[in-house]
Amino acid sequence: MQNYIAGRWYDEDDSLISALITGVLNGESVYEVVRTYNGLPFAFRKHFDRLKRSAALMSMEVPFTCKELNSIILEGIDKNRPSPSGDLRIRIVLFGNGENVLPAVIYALLPSVSKDIYELGVKIAISPYTKPSGAIVDPRLKIPGASWNIRTRKNLGDNYDMIILNEKGNVCEGSFSNVFLVKDGRVITPDIGSGVLPGITRDNLIGLCRSIEINVVERPVAAWEMFSADELFLTHTSVGIVPIRKLEEKILIEDFTDGMTRLLLDNFEDYIMTEDSNWSGLDEVEPSDYRADI
Amino acid sequence: MQNYIAGRWYDEDDSLISALITGVLNGESVYEVVRTYNGLPFAFRKHFDRLKRSAALMSMEVPFTCKELNSIILEGIDKNRPSPSGDLRIRIVLFGNGENVLPAVIYALLPSVSKDIYELGVKIAISPYTKPSGAIVDPRLKIPGASWNIRTRKNLGDNYDMIILNEKGNVCEGSFSNVFLVKDGRVITPDIGSGVLPGITRDNLIGLCRSIEINVVERPVAAWEMFSADELFLTHTSVGIVPIRKLEEKILIEDFTDGMTRLLLDNFEDYIMTEDSNWSGLDEVEPSDYRADI
Amino acid sequence: MQNYIAGRWYDEDDSLISALITGVLNGESVYEVVRTYNGLPFAFRKHFDRLKRSAALMSMEVPFTCKELNSIILEGIDKNRPSPSGDLRIRIVLFGNGENVLPAVIYALLPSVSKDIYELGVKIAISPYTKPSGAIVDPRLKIPGASWNIRTRKNLGDNYDMIILNEKGNVCEGSFSNVFLVKDGRVITPDIGSGVLPGITRDNLIGLCRSIEINVVERPVAAWEMFSADELFLTHTSVGIVPIRKLEEKILIEDFTDGMTRLLLDNFEDYIMTEDSNWSGLDEVEPSDYRADI
Amino acid sequence: MQNYIAGRWYDEDDSLISALITGVLNGESVYEVVRTYNGLPFAFRKHFDRLKRSAALMSMEVPFTCKELNSIILEGIDKNRPSPSGDLRIRIVLFGNGENVLPAVIYALLPSVSKDIYELGVKIAISPYTKPSGAIVDPRLKIPGASWNIRTRKNLGDNYDMIILNEKGNVCEGSFSNVFLVKDGRVITPDIGSGVLPGITRDNLIGLCRSIEINVVERPVAAWEMFSADELFLTHTSVGIVPIRKLEEKILIEDFTDGMTRLLLDNFEDYIMTEDSNWSGLDEVEPSDYRADI
Repeated sequence: MQNYIAGRWYDEDDSLISALITGVLNGESVYEVVRTYNGLPFAFRKHFDRLKRSAALMSMEVPFTCKELNSIILEGIDKNRPSPSGDLRIRIVLFGNGENVLPAVIYALLPSVSKDIYELGVKIAISPYTKPSGAIVDPRLKIPGASWNIRTRKNLGDNYDMIILNEKGNVCEGSFSNVFLVKDGRVITPDIGSGVLPGITRDNLIGLCRSIEINVVERPVAAWEMFSADELFLTHTSVGIVPIRKLEEKILIEDFTDGMTRLLLDNFEDYIMTEDSNWSGLDEVEPSDYRADI
Repeated sequence: MQNYIAGRWYDEDDSLISALITGVLNGESVYEVVRTYNGLPFAFRKHFDRLKRSAALMSMEVPFTCKELNSIILEGIDKNRPSPSGDLRIRIVLFGNGENVLPAVIYALLPSVSKDIYELGVKIAISPYTKPSGAIVDPRLKIPGASWNIRTRKNLGDNYDMIILNEKGNVCEGSFSNVFLVKDGRVITPDIGSGVLPGITRDNLIGLCRSIEINVVERPVAAWEMFSADELFLTHTSVGIVPIRKLEEKILIEDFTDGMTRLLLDNFEDYIMTEDSNWSGLDEVEPSDYRADI
Repeated sequence: MQNYIAGRWYDEDDSLISALITGVLNGESVYEVVRTYNGLPFAFRKHFDRLKRSAALMSMEVPFTCKELNSIILEGIDKNRPSPSGDLRIRIVLFGNGENVLPAVIYALLPSVSKDIYELGVKIAISPYTKPSGAIVDPRLKIPGASWNIRTRKNLGDNYDMIILNEKGNVCEGSFSNVFLVKDGRVITPDIGSGVLPGITRDNLIGLCRSIEINVVERPVAAWEMFSADELFLTHTSVGIVPIRKLEEKILIEDFTDGMTRLLLDNFEDYIMTEDSNWSGLDEVEPSDYRADI
Repeated sequence: MQNYIAGRWYDEDDSLISALITGVLNGESVYEVVRTYNGLPFAFRKHFDRLKRSAALMSMEVPFTCKELNSIILEGIDKNRPSPSGDLRIRIVLFGNGENVLPAVIYALLPSVSKDIYELGVKIAISPYTKPSGAIVDPRLKIPGASWNIRTRKNLGDNYDMIILNEKGNVCEGSFSNVFLVKDGRVITPDIGSGVLPGITRDNLIGLCRSIEINVVERPVAAWEMFSADELFLTHTSVGIVPIRKLEEKILIEDFTDGMTRLLLDNFEDYIMTEDSNWSGLDEVEPSDYRADI
């Protein structure tokens, strides 16, 4: 893979940066992870807006317009795409460097997904590590160094992911996924104030529900509610919707041939591929203040 | 300056690392900052123990014994010391790299301190950013990416430092310092459970108090107590003790010729230079479990 | 004094109720305290609404319309008013009694107030007892058995009142008063979510500010902000506005001849006596649901 | 029934107290509920100690020694016991009355218990009302006016009891019971810091476990752990141990013929009847300070 660092393209072995900059030493950096579908960056405008907001909260400048960054991304897709049908996972990073910013775009193959996940569901558990809720740390900050995330991911064992709770015992998110409950025909997911990173796949899931007139609620969700839910699923960018079979060794659901999760799975790809906001907006005027409250 | 990266020494311009490793991209790294006095690393054993504990909490290995790391540090001091009387600030970093660890030792000149600070005191304020208390995030983790710290430091204005509170409204620490109150002849500082990084200069201050029989208390400290204190001071490694004159525009104290802060200032350097634990222990056996509870 | 208990009037010595009812044994009761001005109950409609809301939150019925309860109150004022110029403090209580409610109206003389309070200000401190914020216990519940209140009042020492904080270290209220800060020409008071009982004198103070175009803000107020305020005052029903001179032994203000507190003091009585909502509304239709969210 | 009020015995209809005292109007009162076994008050010394502690925390005096209060209790049992085999539920109340205390002892029949409870287990749910944890309100205070308790009890529906959580989402207790989990052969119950009233039946259950060498742990218990427990049961004074069959409509266990709950049920009565501390200690010297920390 070729990666973009501060204006030039480098092979993997030459993708180096100074170990002395604040973005490396202090973790003063912000990032986004974009995937492609059929070689096109997915929901790029949304990712760009989120990057701008993270950067603003950290008093950093984004040294590109949306279109400029999109061009760089596309250039790298051209260089790196393994085959006409292969897809990529693209990390955009802005490293702080004193008063300046050092931008990088890092490419990797999108991992392939076993179809079994969608048929059989996965096993998850509850993480022993706590994420601060939105009242303590702004959940829109997407920066490295989230110890609850790193530690959770290092201790997954045989779990697909582990659910991280906040200090109130409410659900935040998985270490790389968002969580949804189905209860009495409604879809429920933690609100941003719970400390949830406003995931773009999460937003698309909410959009899908609305488009097919399923009642969807964002609110604080007590961890115990997951056990009394009818169905439970995760979303994350590289896989989409992931049904959950087992939670903390308790079997929640045996059969995914029916039910809400199946309905959403059957409609998800079509929704995201045709939803206009996922594929447009590159030329939109940027809001003047990305620091505005949630 | 020459810096150590993964077994070799590099000039500043060549002090590069891969932008692709987890230690850079995910903030999966731990660090310590050591200073020298008269060219000798200060409290090295304590820093090493703290590094081991941080690493253990992140499921990382430290690829050195205490003596091995000390030898590397000394080699760099030899290479970098500007003059026989000059001192250095040395950052030890362990970058995560998948299952491995990439170690680095980065050297910088210790900034010089105006004597005015000790005579006149400084102005501080209360940070708008919150640090999670010890019940939410383990305060012994010293990793980059602490957004409350980075954001506070970027917004200091004319303040020497800003005091970061936890979610209970209790004092944690400054963005690069620890805080002490003097009230009714006692010295009070936030306890580790408040979310305080157990600073090595903080530990020495506590040791100094005990050595001259001043009552010193570690406990949760409400932010408002700073305003009703008789005196207030900060400690940090490069400067030692910093008296505070103004807090949020209110003058706390006008005259530092007398009082507890002066007494501690007059005795601090002698204490740290003669306190055995700051200069020994390189050969001590390492505890088997660095994850033990606070 | 004559008191009303469950439909009849009793002398003080005969104002007895059963010790066996849930309202006495379990503290299942709600109450309001109304004062008179010139023999007329002040802000009666507001008190009645608040009583209805408390009762609804406790699944209790109020066995009167607003007009009916007002008539009882007036009957008691007739029986008990000490002189044409004397004023009364009237407690309305609904005691739970299984599925039923036992109403009582208790009369006492309004204590007289030294003019010195308004000229010299009072001394207050911060209570060691914590009140749960609105996220834990609904602050609109006005029931007996608030241990933070009882314990604070029993330990006032030489303080006029003590300020009770919530679990976040934010200001709630005094044990019998509400708190206001003046900072940079604005008036600031804790919001209801902080756990503040929405006091009727507090509401009038806010109304007064608006009527004379002073900027008034309801928001979470950190306890330390009281120390950096320009002025500080309390409000409570029997006394109105109480200026604060000393907080935790620190003198906040020496001279009350000028400033915001003086301005508000000079206009308060006129405002409450002429503000229509304090004297009307007895016939208004009652909202159908008193449980609605804050 | 005859009840004791301030030195005299009264029939139920004459069990009256003044509606004007602080113990009635402000909820300034403390209480204990004692049951009899075979006409003897159970664990009286423990109840007395708990009453003393509650009273001390409220700055109230208990106007009896342990023996004096025991004599009054026994006198009432003589007057009220329905039959040689009938048992009683006895509430001791100290009502605040300005600087004084008005004591009362109220008698009622102990409700009879259906054997079905022990065979079939009960259905419980999670209360929507929150109890402050021990860091906010001292859990050893047993006073009326606990709104979370009153509101929970008024909304039980078809649940035997509802479990009240604290602000961290951890289990406190039922509205009239304590909660125990069985997991991997261990018995787990919330610790006092969670906000749990240290119930005397709870203490006996812990004692029983220790006496038969079952590992028993007091610690914060996340609400979701109840769903992943192997068994779950309540304890309360009038019934002892109550097995739980259903939690929030999820069946936890179908068969109580075996398992830990059955083992404890089979041994409970024998333990409490023979455990010396439940029946002795009336003459013990009282600790000098009942306010000491948990």
